[in-house]
Amino acid sequence: MLELKQRIAAEGKNLGGGILKVDSLINHQVDPKLMDECGIEFARRLASTAPTRILTAEISGIAPALMTARHMHVPVVYARKNRPVTMPDTVYLTIAPSHTKGNKVELIVSPEYLKPGERVLIIDDFLATGATILGLVRLTEAAGATLCGIGTLIEKTFEGGREALEYLHVPIEALVQITSMEDGRIEFAD
Amino acid sequence: MLELKQRIAAEGKNLGGGILKVDSLINHQVDPKLMDECGIEFARRLASTAPTRILTAEISGIAPALMTARHMHVPVVYARKNRPVTMPDTVYLTIAPSHTKGNKVELIVSPEYLKPGERVLIIDDFLATGATILGLVRLTEAAGATLCGIGTLIEKTFEGGREALEYLHVPIEALVQITSMEDGRIEFAD
Repeated sequence: MLELKQRIAAEGKNLGGGILKVDSLINHQVDPKLMDECGIEFARRLASTAPTRILTAEISGIAPALMTARHMHVPVVYARKNRPVTMPDTVYLTIAPSHTKGNKVELIVSPEYLKPGERVLIIDDFLATGATILGLVRLTEAAGATLCGIGTLIEKTFEGGREALEYLHVPIEALVQITSMEDGRIEFAD
Repeated sequence: MLELKQRIAAEGKNLGGGILKVDSLINHQVDPKLMDECGIEFARRLASTAPTRILTAEISGIAPALMTARHMHVPVVYARKNRPVTMPDTVYLTIAPSHTKGNKVELIVSPEYLKPGERVLIIDDFLATGATILGLVRLTEAAGATLCGIGTLIEKTFEGGREALEYLHVPIEALVQITSMEDGRIEFAD
């Protein structure tokens, strides 16, 4: 997606260690128009997956997932990392290593909003090692729902996430692919 | 706002202790169409505040703030509760008591995205005691920006938040006002 790629090229910062800073448009400040266009693009590319629900992880997945949900006319559920007091006693919980935080986080979904028979499209900001998305896949499976597709704003192709998700045999769409972050640069596919 | 009120009346649960569960439409699952209509309504009611930036707090503020930003054509910044590795060494940080968690949380904004001269509209999900919003106000002041208005999806009028914010002399808009949660009921204004 050309506009997102241009914005990352202009505003993204390679902080080293595989960390891409895009705080000016995704992870701290969000451009609602750009994010809405990302939602349109996800809805177009993943239309054939026919989801009944979009699943993401708080925090940075919420904006792209919400805009995609808007254009696919389905609800979005964001997995919580801390169990709020409003959740029922029994929940779906899985552990996922956090790429940027260097520790493990819990991902928690209430059975109230993820049910057997649902067709789940996972939308997140980054596909790196795939650890967070695999956590969301486990929650989907725990709920007896069917995974129908995966979409991420940015894929770092050199971290193996796509290969880790291949066994799922669902469409995987990344709006921008970054092929290398060596030597302080940010290299894009095509 | 009639539609939001009807949805809260139908789906909201009074869990006691002043806790209103609206996980099916705001705090865990989000209806993107309803949230977009809330954004339209905030943009209409608060048009005269002429913000250059919308400020909210992760996590549940993101959806209403993003949709409001979309209709006001400005960026949204969400204060982080943990300092990500992508933030600069020097940030604006304030401490706010968490109403639902019973502890204190940090609210952190990078000086990169909140600058002197900005006109800041704060949007959040709940106005209860006003503690989180007052934290966002302190961040706005620390940045040398000007607070121009406050909007929340739901106000619990019996918790004193509006009175705590009155000294700011800015418009405060709540889309739905809840006047009492005694005896397990949810009573609305009007």
